Amino acid sequence: MARTLRKPASAPRLTAQGRATKDRILQAAADLMAERGAARTTMEDVMETAGVSASQVYHYFGDKRGLVRAVITYQTDATLERQQPYLDHLDSFAALQSWRDQRIALQIEHGCAGGCELGALAGELVESSPEAREYLAAAFTRWLEPIRSGLHSMRERGELRPDADPDRLAAALLAALQGGVLLTQIHRDPEHLAAALDAVLAYIRSFGA
Amino acid sequence: MARTLRKPASAPRLTAQGRATKDRILQAAADLMAERGAARTTMEDVMETAGVSASQVYHYFGDKRGLVRAVITYQTDATLERQQPYLDHLDSFAALQSWRDQRIALQIEHGCAGGCELGALAGELVESSPEAREYLAAAFTRWLEPIRSGLHSMRERGELRPDADPDRLAAALLAALQGGVLLTQIHRDPEHLAAALDAVLAYIRSFGA
Repeated sequence: MARTLRKPASAPRLTAQGRATKDRILQAAADLMAERGAARTTMEDVMETAGVSASQVYHYFGDKRGLVRAVITYQTDATLERQQPYLDHLDSFAALQSWRDQRIALQIEHGCAGGCELGALAGELVESSPEAREYLAAAFTRWLEPIRSGLHSMRERGELRPDADPDRLAAALLAALQGGVLLTQIHRDPEHLAAALDAVLAYIRSFGA
Repeated sequence: MARTLRKPASAPRLTAQGRATKDRILQAAADLMAERGAARTTMEDVMETAGVSASQVYHYFGDKRGLVRAVITYQTDATLERQQPYLDHLDSFAALQSWRDQRIALQIEHGCAGGCELGALAGELVESSPEAREYLAAAFTRWLEPIRSGLHSMRERGELRPDADPDRLAAALLAALQGGVLLTQIHRDPEHLAAALDAVLAYIRSFGA
């Protein structure tokens, strides 16, 4: 299932200054797209916010589509980094519960506003082009992987019964997270996310050996 | 929880011809926004597609925000109408299973493309204005209501144990549907939606008396 995302050909040859400029453009594009969506973010907005020229943006990212692809990868990295301490060891019922608690605490901390940057990009871009969809599929596969891996470990260690299907359980958990975050964002009420995660986690616990 | 959406003041006074024109504008706006998103849909696009003048669009819907509000309500009506035979009687395990089967059959029928029109609008517009968010919250509350109602009936009839919480179970089911449809759309694979719905439905069945 996991796919490797192509890296821009120029990546290994960047000087420190080039890398800093590229990062500044990417950060500006990611912030603007998170705030107003990819469609409403123009190349001119990105240039202005990053304080760079058109030729610099086009040099590093090609066109708008190249920039959107880079932002998908950027938000995937950011999402996984924020959850890394949890995702690295999602291999016990206690760890799953801590991850759940942290996801909900984060929503409460932000007043349930903002939602999931990657989910928002996905909702907006998934039908925009086959290429964007492929990048999004690779992004969500990267997110699914540590969840699958943890549940597989639990089954191998006998903490989940042999009839548990870690791939399906992981897919259900990520879907509950995505849908739960969206409904929590819409209603400004963390209870939607809590209800969704609790239901799937209880189902996973029902496979406890 | 349920909120009533304000109706445009002019609604009761429309002639048959006025109603037809208004419907044509709304249909064009809904189709365009489903295809390319609300941000990428201009008032000019809507006029051209519906074959009407600017003054007609502004007469019936005010500004772009008025049109977006009307499209949210339109897509909510359409979503609920499509599922109505199921949503009207979601009050048995067999009925829940049939609804699940129909949701997945529909995804397969469409090649897992297109996703949920209402979910896509929500993802794009939820942070665009407090008013848009309020309309979206009302829309999803309307969708949640028949799910809650069916589960409450099951508990009242003793088919679910007294410790089942129909409101939380309904919220979990709708979140699993939203997240599952998005991941199915991204991966073009109905298994994501099936895994999500099956997990929550199995959890609901665990409360069977």
